[in-house]
Amino acid sequence: MTPNETRFRVRYAETDQMGVVYYSNYLVWMEIGRVEWCKQQGCSYREMEGEDGILLAVAECQCRYLAPARFDDEIVVKTWVEQANPRLVTFAYDLQLAASNRKLASGFTRHLILDREFRRTRLPKKYFPMFGLGS
Amino acid sequence: MTPNETRFRVRYAETDQMGVVYYSNYLVWMEIGRVEWCKQQGCSYREMEGEDGILLAVAECQCRYLAPARFDDEIVVKTWVEQANPRLVTFAYDLQLAASNRKLASGFTRHLILDREFRRTRLPKKYFPMFGLGS
Amino acid sequence: MTPNETRFRVRYAETDQMGVVYYSNYLVWMEIGRVEWCKQQGCSYREMEGEDGILLAVAECQCRYLAPARFDDEIVVKTWVEQANPRLVTFAYDLQLAASNRKLASGFTRHLILDREFRRTRLPKKYFPMFGLGS
Amino acid sequence: MTPNETRFRVRYAETDQMGVVYYSNYLVWMEIGRVEWCKQQGCSYREMEGEDGILLAVAECQCRYLAPARFDDEIVVKTWVEQANPRLVTFAYDLQLAASNRKLASGFTRHLILDREFRRTRLPKKYFPMFGLGS
Repeated sequence: MTPNETRFRVRYAETDQMGVVYYSNYLVWMEIGRVEWCKQQGCSYREMEGEDGILLAVAECQCRYLAPARFDDEIVVKTWVEQANPRLVTFAYDLQLAASNRKLASGFTRHLILDREFRRTRLPKKYFPMFGLGS
Repeated sequence: MTPNETRFRVRYAETDQMGVVYYSNYLVWMEIGRVEWCKQQGCSYREMEGEDGILLAVAECQCRYLAPARFDDEIVVKTWVEQANPRLVTFAYDLQLAASNRKLASGFTRHLILDREFRRTRLPKKYFPMFGLGS
Repeated sequence: MTPNETRFRVRYAETDQMGVVYYSNYLVWMEIGRVEWCKQQGCSYREMEGEDGILLAVAECQCRYLAPARFDDEIVVKTWVEQANPRLVTFAYDLQLAASNRKLASGFTRHLILDREFRRTRLPKKYFPMFGLGS
Repeated sequence: MTPNETRFRVRYAETDQMGVVYYSNYLVWMEIGRVEWCKQQGCSYREMEGEDGILLAVAECQCRYLAPARFDDEIVVKTWVEQANPRLVTFAYDLQLAASNRKLASGFTRHLILDREFRRTRLPKKYFPMFGLGS
């Protein structure tokens, strides 16, 4: 699977007094990446949650910061699934400056599949193909 | 009713590249103020929402910014109810620096009383006293 | 001047436990609108601040909320200058759902022109045309 | 060194439509923890940055999420320095519910010592003791 690529510009609100993007915002950007990755697979994360009651709850995240992002920079988030089984999915991300392809950060998020009551469950079979899982 | 006073320190995350607090965070601080105001009245906003299914949905907000707040400043939010009827509640706020009492901002938020399906409803009678409403 | 129109999707991070967008995020969206408005006028807000040392500090904001926005909704922000003189600029905004044109909110932000030391100053003449100011 | 303990309540703004705290906010809470840790050592992070021009830029973060936090929960952040040398400092964190001591999350942030121009530098000697560094 080719990674999904999503683009957006850094918001003023995302900067801090160091003059660069505050570090927790990269996690918000990773979320944008995985939502768009789902769409690219023909699936809406909104529907997965709203209709099938399947939550991808974050169990772990990690991010390495290589270079700062600044206000109004265009950012590219590359998102792919690094590992998946019916109970656990790991997304990986590369974040770059669109203008120079300079790598800004990389990281991953690991997600438990939960039902609406926050109990661990299995991914419904209809989502297996998008995560590269055999039946 | 005397205003509720709540104190907290400015977070690094709340600053922007201008070196001061980003303007939308004052609305988050007003929310802290009204949650604490409710507690002072012996009522939990969490219960109001969770158990009685009553939402105070923001219909309007306004804020005037008089002086900037900076990282690690201690902020005092004074919160009071400016106007209330069983369908609409208006909270007002003054924000100050704790160290000098310097006024940073003032504003209000106007709230519709909604049920869980986001339909307009009346405030349950048990909440009348805290909002100064006669039965 | 025709309003600038900017589009983006609601982030999961922008929702709250009511299931809709938290109210302070509309102010972040207004900021996106005015940054894009500046670009449409052939001017970069980043340069205005970085090179000319001109800050548009928010002195007042107001927002009326008409309908809730939800995760993954496409939002359109229409931005225009409502009033301007060399010391004070007022931007106005309409926020809509892209899918239905349903109006979600409207509001304004009023900005003082400040220099890097946060002293009130006049807008440099080169910015007069974009704000519709005569020389 | 005993860990610093800091307490605060979950803000409504920090929840998302899953009804629990959005995952990037734990990184903001870690920042609160390390700012308070610095104060406990008799040092102000604000002064370190403002007067000595020393920035603790985040180079890496990691967080494991064990249980969800909810609106108005009182949170305890325990913060300590896990490793330090004059060029690199690692803070570690445990986050708990104050009411039950239930562990919510744990993680670390690794920081490069930078000067105002974002160049790597050495921690000034006056900060050695607080990080447990010999002269």
